Amino acid sequence: MIKKLKAWWEALMRNEELKKKLYTIIFESDTPMGKLFDVVLIILIIFSVHLVFIESMEVPLSIKPWLMRAEYFFTIVFTAEYVLRLYCSPKPKDYALSFFGIIDLVATLPFYMTWLFGSARYLLIIRVFRLIRVFRVFKLFHFLREGNLLLRSIILSSRKIFVFFLFVVTLVTSLGTVMYMIEGDLPGTQFTNIPKSIYWAIVTMTTVGYGDVTPVTGLGRFLSSLVMLLGYTIMAVPTGIVSVSMMNLRDAEKREATQEDSDEVEEENMRIVERMKTEDEEFLADDEPNYCPYCGGSILFSGANFCPHCGRNLKV
Amino acid sequence: MIKKLKAWWEALMRNEELKKKLYTIIFESDTPMGKLFDVVLIILIIFSVHLVFIESMEVPLSIKPWLMRAEYFFTIVFTAEYVLRLYCSPKPKDYALSFFGIIDLVATLPFYMTWLFGSARYLLIIRVFRLIRVFRVFKLFHFLREGNLLLRSIILSSRKIFVFFLFVVTLVTSLGTVMYMIEGDLPGTQFTNIPKSIYWAIVTMTTVGYGDVTPVTGLGRFLSSLVMLLGYTIMAVPTGIVSVSMMNLRDAEKREATQEDSDEVEEENMRIVERMKTEDEEFLADDEPNYCPYCGGSILFSGANFCPHCGRNLKV
Amino acid sequence: MIKKLKAWWEALMRNEELKKKLYTIIFESDTPMGKLFDVVLIILIIFSVHLVFIESMEVPLSIKPWLMRAEYFFTIVFTAEYVLRLYCSPKPKDYALSFFGIIDLVATLPFYMTWLFGSARYLLIIRVFRLIRVFRVFKLFHFLREGNLLLRSIILSSRKIFVFFLFVVTLVTSLGTVMYMIEGDLPGTQFTNIPKSIYWAIVTMTTVGYGDVTPVTGLGRFLSSLVMLLGYTIMAVPTGIVSVSMMNLRDAEKREATQEDSDEVEEENMRIVERMKTEDEEFLADDEPNYCPYCGGSILFSGANFCPHCGRNLKV
Amino acid sequence: MIKKLKAWWEALMRNEELKKKLYTIIFESDTPMGKLFDVVLIILIIFSVHLVFIESMEVPLSIKPWLMRAEYFFTIVFTAEYVLRLYCSPKPKDYALSFFGIIDLVATLPFYMTWLFGSARYLLIIRVFRLIRVFRVFKLFHFLREGNLLLRSIILSSRKIFVFFLFVVTLVTSLGTVMYMIEGDLPGTQFTNIPKSIYWAIVTMTTVGYGDVTPVTGLGRFLSSLVMLLGYTIMAVPTGIVSVSMMNLRDAEKREATQEDSDEVEEENMRIVERMKTEDEEFLADDEPNYCPYCGGSILFSGANFCPHCGRNLKV
Repeated sequence: MIKKLKAWWEALMRNEELKKKLYTIIFESDTPMGKLFDVVLIILIIFSVHLVFIESMEVPLSIKPWLMRAEYFFTIVFTAEYVLRLYCSPKPKDYALSFFGIIDLVATLPFYMTWLFGSARYLLIIRVFRLIRVFRVFKLFHFLREGNLLLRSIILSSRKIFVFFLFVVTLVTSLGTVMYMIEGDLPGTQFTNIPKSIYWAIVTMTTVGYGDVTPVTGLGRFLSSLVMLLGYTIMAVPTGIVSVSMMNLRDAEKREATQEDSDEVEEENMRIVERMKTEDEEFLADDEPNYCPYCGGSILFSGANFCPHCGRNLKV
Repeated sequence: MIKKLKAWWEALMRNEELKKKLYTIIFESDTPMGKLFDVVLIILIIFSVHLVFIESMEVPLSIKPWLMRAEYFFTIVFTAEYVLRLYCSPKPKDYALSFFGIIDLVATLPFYMTWLFGSARYLLIIRVFRLIRVFRVFKLFHFLREGNLLLRSIILSSRKIFVFFLFVVTLVTSLGTVMYMIEGDLPGTQFTNIPKSIYWAIVTMTTVGYGDVTPVTGLGRFLSSLVMLLGYTIMAVPTGIVSVSMMNLRDAEKREATQEDSDEVEEENMRIVERMKTEDEEFLADDEPNYCPYCGGSILFSGANFCPHCGRNLKV
Repeated sequence: MIKKLKAWWEALMRNEELKKKLYTIIFESDTPMGKLFDVVLIILIIFSVHLVFIESMEVPLSIKPWLMRAEYFFTIVFTAEYVLRLYCSPKPKDYALSFFGIIDLVATLPFYMTWLFGSARYLLIIRVFRLIRVFRVFKLFHFLREGNLLLRSIILSSRKIFVFFLFVVTLVTSLGTVMYMIEGDLPGTQFTNIPKSIYWAIVTMTTVGYGDVTPVTGLGRFLSSLVMLLGYTIMAVPTGIVSVSMMNLRDAEKREATQEDSDEVEEENMRIVERMKTEDEEFLADDEPNYCPYCGGSILFSGANFCPHCGRNLKV
Repeated sequence: MIKKLKAWWEALMRNEELKKKLYTIIFESDTPMGKLFDVVLIILIIFSVHLVFIESMEVPLSIKPWLMRAEYFFTIVFTAEYVLRLYCSPKPKDYALSFFGIIDLVATLPFYMTWLFGSARYLLIIRVFRLIRVFRVFKLFHFLREGNLLLRSIILSSRKIFVFFLFVVTLVTSLGTVMYMIEGDLPGTQFTNIPKSIYWAIVTMTTVGYGDVTPVTGLGRFLSSLVMLLGYTIMAVPTGIVSVSMMNLRDAEKREATQEDSDEVEEENMRIVERMKTEDEEFLADDEPNYCPYCGGSILFSGANFCPHCGRNLKV
């Protein structure tokens, strides 16, 4: 019996064809099956995240068994997903140690932990693990291609943004300290220590302005005003950084596009004579996408920069 | 008598000249009459919206009859406008089902509903319908041409902005959950459940900072500071997106301006296209613009929504 | 006696030389006297504005007479300034009816009104007139050249910004109304009428977030979150508008600068031969500014784009 | 004995080799030792700043002696650093009078003052000196190269930003005054005087929105809404300024990159300059960079702070 199981296991482990097929479905999204898998997974994640939300609220007792059943269901589904991902991944270790690998594992654990130890023990850890499931929402972001551009432009400017961060941190540290000097000794002051004063400086400079810690003296209000105006102005710096880095990405894209374009004009001139003699199917250059990769509409004009149906940039 | 009325009705329905004349006045704003109609309508809308405002406030009893009379007046005027629009529109159904068609209808209904059912019944629905009249303010926006550019640059970057939205949503979901982990168990905490904690995260990250939900522990304040600094920094991302897309529109406009001198290549292309067109005329519907009104490029695909050269919306 | 006075008056009125001299001092700031006048005026304005501040606060009785004396002093000085401006202005009426003309007049009135009517009567008007003196701070802004660029780029994009304004106004109107629908009927609600709900929508969408009006229901918080995210995102639109219009101004400047540059290269080639034979004073092109107009430092390199002392752009 | 000490002191003072070696380690960060010194110093600064934080909080008595010992340790370390910096600096006076020179000195003083005068006297000054140590966090910023670019783009646009600042100051002054006119006379108003009203205007226009001072009348809320919308919109101005100045820096960099191929004109200019230089060598100080390290343009004026070609800061 065990021998048979072991043989079956080994056959399964060596079944590269099945692995590849599953990989295409689970990790990629080019095939209809892959797309279906993605959509179903997104819906399941959204529902499971809302389940965590509902569990955190006070609910009538009559709903509790339904929540339990939903827990069972999601535990089974996500355990299956985790196992399949491990199985078909070419480098299972890399997946297991990746951000989503850990999240996927953690998301299935709370149920098994309750089963193993009883719900009474390790309660805090189980609770935290339950909440961690919410982090799976990041998978939503994972499915969108456009995100890469944003991410790229943020990564390109990450060093500068880090410096800006550091600059802001040093600024709020010193401004919070100055505020502590000014209002720290007043009876009933809210600036009871430096960290709280720095918290105030951050709340003020980022223009959040909770109002839970506010100055009461004239001098305190004056410093406060300076911090606000400073925050209001230097807000421009990260914006400038990101704008310029996005502009750089755009220019890089455009340069390619115009290069293709000017190549095209030359080629076009060459093609004019040929074209005159040929039928209208020649009208469409073979090396051009005849269908918009975004909306699937047909593109009749060779060298089109934008899809005439959805307006998306075809040269990106 | 009925026969006569019916004949008159049919004559009216077939009176294309009157329809066209009314259409020019009501739907367009190129003629003096059309402009006058627009201005009068804007003033009436502003007054009627203020009437809704006043009705929501506590007013002295002596004013109430005047409000009633104003209600009568606006109901008559907007009913007339609605009927005339339906009458002269070449596709009445399209108008009736459009956003403004529905708003226009709904804006006239409350009075008739009160008349039909008495003010006592269906009170909530009548109340909601009354308030919906406020949405007619969007018509104000409709009258301005400049809006199209803003709209276009937002539409061009809508995908990226949606991704950013999604990114922010996943971020506040997880940050709210972490805050719930930190301060959710404190006695008298304001972070009573995850949705409320997410609400806090949104209030904080968008730098709104109501202060109705604030952290009280040191760790909570530290996370809060991180969320603020994060929100303060990633605010740069939508700005960068919109700036770049506006820059793109500007560049496209500039290119046209500079192209006026060196349009020879374009003209060459035009001539080719012309030839092609004569060869397959059935391809292009005659009622469609064959040239992009923005960049002058030829549009081969009848029913194109966007220019394949410059990506501008042809349907605006 | 009166005859003599009249003759003197007419002579004064016809004294174009004196008028011109005074005009140079008072309205222009190119001469040393004009600069001195400006600086003295700025200092006087700042002091008089602070006097208004101090008068609004509770001060010890012992200071009151000093405030009175300062009032006398400023009234005399600003009356003299107003009369001189009227006298030397080529179009006194235009000045008198300009924003600063009215402010200058109003700033001198409170004292005379107290003198004429007694301080008991017209008290409110006198009080308002006193406060209006604060508006003279706008003169500070008037003295700076750099302001023009900012102003120009704002004016260039004013139409678009107005459309954005209108868009925001329609948005907050409808969002405030929706919030009134949601929370307007709750007992003890803060959304007591539509205008107050619109005030809440503005507070929220501009990310100010006073927290004096906040939602209490789940649905209200959800709408609130949407409004915040919306405000956080569309904030990008005015930024994009202003950035692009500034970019346009910069490009226009650069185009001129590069045109001058390329002209310069040609001229430079012509000058090379001449230069070789001449002494080092020839090194400085006569048509170039030899001194930085900003910091006064000497510029040795003809065709310098930036001042080597202060780094300012010399081609602007 | 004293003679010997004096001789040793003089030898030390004249030991240029040791000075140079120490200078390389302490002031520069190119060598492994220099890098190590920097890293250790950063860590020590971070710890010492946290020590100041902890001292401002209420701590259990058992920790107090440990804080005292940490104080001793940091005093010794930073005194040593200060003395070494003074010793190896080629211009000790310049260092002593620089921002960090003063901070470094002040950071070591509190301990010695307690020792000299006893902790009872001069308590406030000692306390302030202790807090000033926090300002050493600015050294963190000093270590990062990327900061220069940010700083440079801010410096380049500093004049414009200052004008914007001034504009905002005049705006909040007048808007605060108007609000004082509106709500200053109400019983129990929070707008008790003009400075507090200006504080409110700053809190509102920078979109901070503490909510500690809020309008209560309809007119006050209306003005408030205007201030918010204004602040929300003009926020775009500093962003535009900084974006454009960053764009300028980027373009300057790009121009260099593209110029590498077509440097012939530049080289021609170089050769001319070379000739000129040989003719008036006394003009150029030998220890000055004769070529801009950024754009390669020749710098004729010895002691130039900025490159006359590209405007970059040569002293950074």
